[in-house]
Amino acid sequence: MAENILVVGGGPAGLHSAVTLANIGVNVSLVERDSFLGGNPKKFKYKFLFPDMQPADDVIGELIKRAEENDGIKVYYSSNVSNFKENEKKFNVTIKSPDASETKTFDSVIIATGFEHFDPARDAKYSYQLFDDVIDIKDLERMMGENNFVRPSNGQPPKNVAFILCVGSRDRHVGNQYCSRVCCTVSVKQAIELRERFPDCDAYIFYMDIRTYGFFEDLYWKAMEEHDVQIVKGRIAEITSGPNNTVICKGEDTLLRGPFEIPFDMVVLASGMEGGPQSSEMVDKIGLELNEHGFLKPQNVTLAPFKSNKEGVFLAGACTGPKAISDSIVEGGAAAMDAYIYAVKNK
Amino acid sequence: MAENILVVGGGPAGLHSAVTLANIGVNVSLVERDSFLGGNPKKFKYKFLFPDMQPADDVIGELIKRAEENDGIKVYYSSNVSNFKENEKKFNVTIKSPDASETKTFDSVIIATGFEHFDPARDAKYSYQLFDDVIDIKDLERMMGENNFVRPSNGQPPKNVAFILCVGSRDRHVGNQYCSRVCCTVSVKQAIELRERFPDCDAYIFYMDIRTYGFFEDLYWKAMEEHDVQIVKGRIAEITSGPNNTVICKGEDTLLRGPFEIPFDMVVLASGMEGGPQSSEMVDKIGLELNEHGFLKPQNVTLAPFKSNKEGVFLAGACTGPKAISDSIVEGGAAAMDAYIYAVKNK
Repeated sequence: MAENILVVGGGPAGLHSAVTLANIGVNVSLVERDSFLGGNPKKFKYKFLFPDMQPADDVIGELIKRAEENDGIKVYYSSNVSNFKENEKKFNVTIKSPDASETKTFDSVIIATGFEHFDPARDAKYSYQLFDDVIDIKDLERMMGENNFVRPSNGQPPKNVAFILCVGSRDRHVGNQYCSRVCCTVSVKQAIELRERFPDCDAYIFYMDIRTYGFFEDLYWKAMEEHDVQIVKGRIAEITSGPNNTVICKGEDTLLRGPFEIPFDMVVLASGMEGGPQSSEMVDKIGLELNEHGFLKPQNVTLAPFKSNKEGVFLAGACTGPKAISDSIVEGGAAAMDAYIYAVKNK
Repeated sequence: MAENILVVGGGPAGLHSAVTLANIGVNVSLVERDSFLGGNPKKFKYKFLFPDMQPADDVIGELIKRAEENDGIKVYYSSNVSNFKENEKKFNVTIKSPDASETKTFDSVIIATGFEHFDPARDAKYSYQLFDDVIDIKDLERMMGENNFVRPSNGQPPKNVAFILCVGSRDRHVGNQYCSRVCCTVSVKQAIELRERFPDCDAYIFYMDIRTYGFFEDLYWKAMEEHDVQIVKGRIAEITSGPNNTVICKGEDTLLRGPFEIPFDMVVLASGMEGGPQSSEMVDKIGLELNEHGFLKPQNVTLAPFKSNKEGVFLAGACTGPKAISDSIVEGGAAAMDAYIYAVKNK
């Protein structure tokens, strides 16, 4: 009889886990809290992915298609895990869907509950809710995804745009000491897209450290050399209203060692990633642990980042910390492998 | 009959691939060019791993032990792949060992050939071979691993040490435009170890951008706040000899906007990572492709970073780009999963 494995979360990590498991004959139950698969990349309609400007549909759309077309995967949309009991190395789980409730026994479990974008309204200095033309990284992704990149205040193309990094990251005032890992590269990518679409629009990136690590560095060179993106080491202290329907970024240029006040048509806040309530719920429901940053805690961060503190329960993707989509997919595969071994060994 | 899978490379990625595959009953042939398993972490005797100062033996030693004790894995030490032929979705491979040569048929293949440390002697400004007290990141790991951290020139504990980041990385003059991803965090870790061992020894880190991405950021705060490591944005132009058996770092402080010349007892160069000849060989022998940075090129950097351009041949670890040990282990698991599926489907 085939193994039964539960995957919680239908973002990139959960989708890759589910598809690979189904490909070796496992019966997969995929529980997704939203009414669609694809996680945040789908929810916020990401259009192009870094580092190679690949259409998001080539990755996320492909993962969704594979899962939806696979007979070995039963997807529970708009659903969640309402009861979870371990019994002799098996897991009795109740899945609650809008119109039904089903209890099943699983041989192992993969948690891939993803992340939440930091809400920039939590830090008043960014005036996120105050000004229409102050948006954040996910808002811009959605605009680009909808081919509707204009100033929200007046529907016109912007003449200059500021990207502000580390919004809600590396910032103890909002409680997030950690770095969110991908926002630098996403912002550099967005600045390039902006310059490609509106060659007359100036793009500024205000940063603490540009963390386009590994080969993402290629995008950083490209932004500077091919797209003339202005990359300024500086911290923003305040965003206020300016003349002619602009917003003013006030801050300090750390390299020139002086204050600046620059009016922009639009400001894009590079909001970071947080663990989110869907991961915290796993603590109460399943008995997992959180780390000091509010993400799910692996058994061993180096040796087994895809194993939870509970035997038979595995972790994949951004639920254990900020990650690029590629990293989440890879971790989905590693977790699938170990979840499969656990299931086979304990049949 | 059990599947036969070839794993080339016995570092963290290859070891995790081999062990997980053997755990589901696969016959694994693990080909290692050195006379020992563990890859660069073992070769250079890494002592503690970032981010949590876990003894390297708890990770690398554990992976080696699992592989050596597993009856499903045959390790070929001091060996390499000398002939590789694809035939109806199977792979006929000759493994050349010091005293023998063996040809076997495999159902799928995992390449985990790792990386090479950049040789800082290639850039004359660092005076790596000129001064005994100028060492690099792997030399220091080895010294720490051997509990022998002293000044090479006179066997005494150093009174101040400079860590220079981006040696051979983000540097077009040496042909490496990319960032090596982990050297910032390794250097911050080493500076903390230095300060713990010699509380009277000052530690300086000269950086372009501190890329302690994700939760590695915790180490950066720790280095500054708990260990008083001096972190200076500045580029080193030259290393020369100084008075009283010191070496002088000349450069420019980018934040203070002025030149500096500081004598140090020791300088540690954070050498980056390169693809290395063992990966390039796979191009000729197996027909894989290199990317523009000299690492093996995956089929799709986001959707399938662990698949090569050849069906049935998978990639894991630093052979596709600079990676942390944890990332390599995770990718070893993801590649194992897909290599297993390929083997099962084409039996």
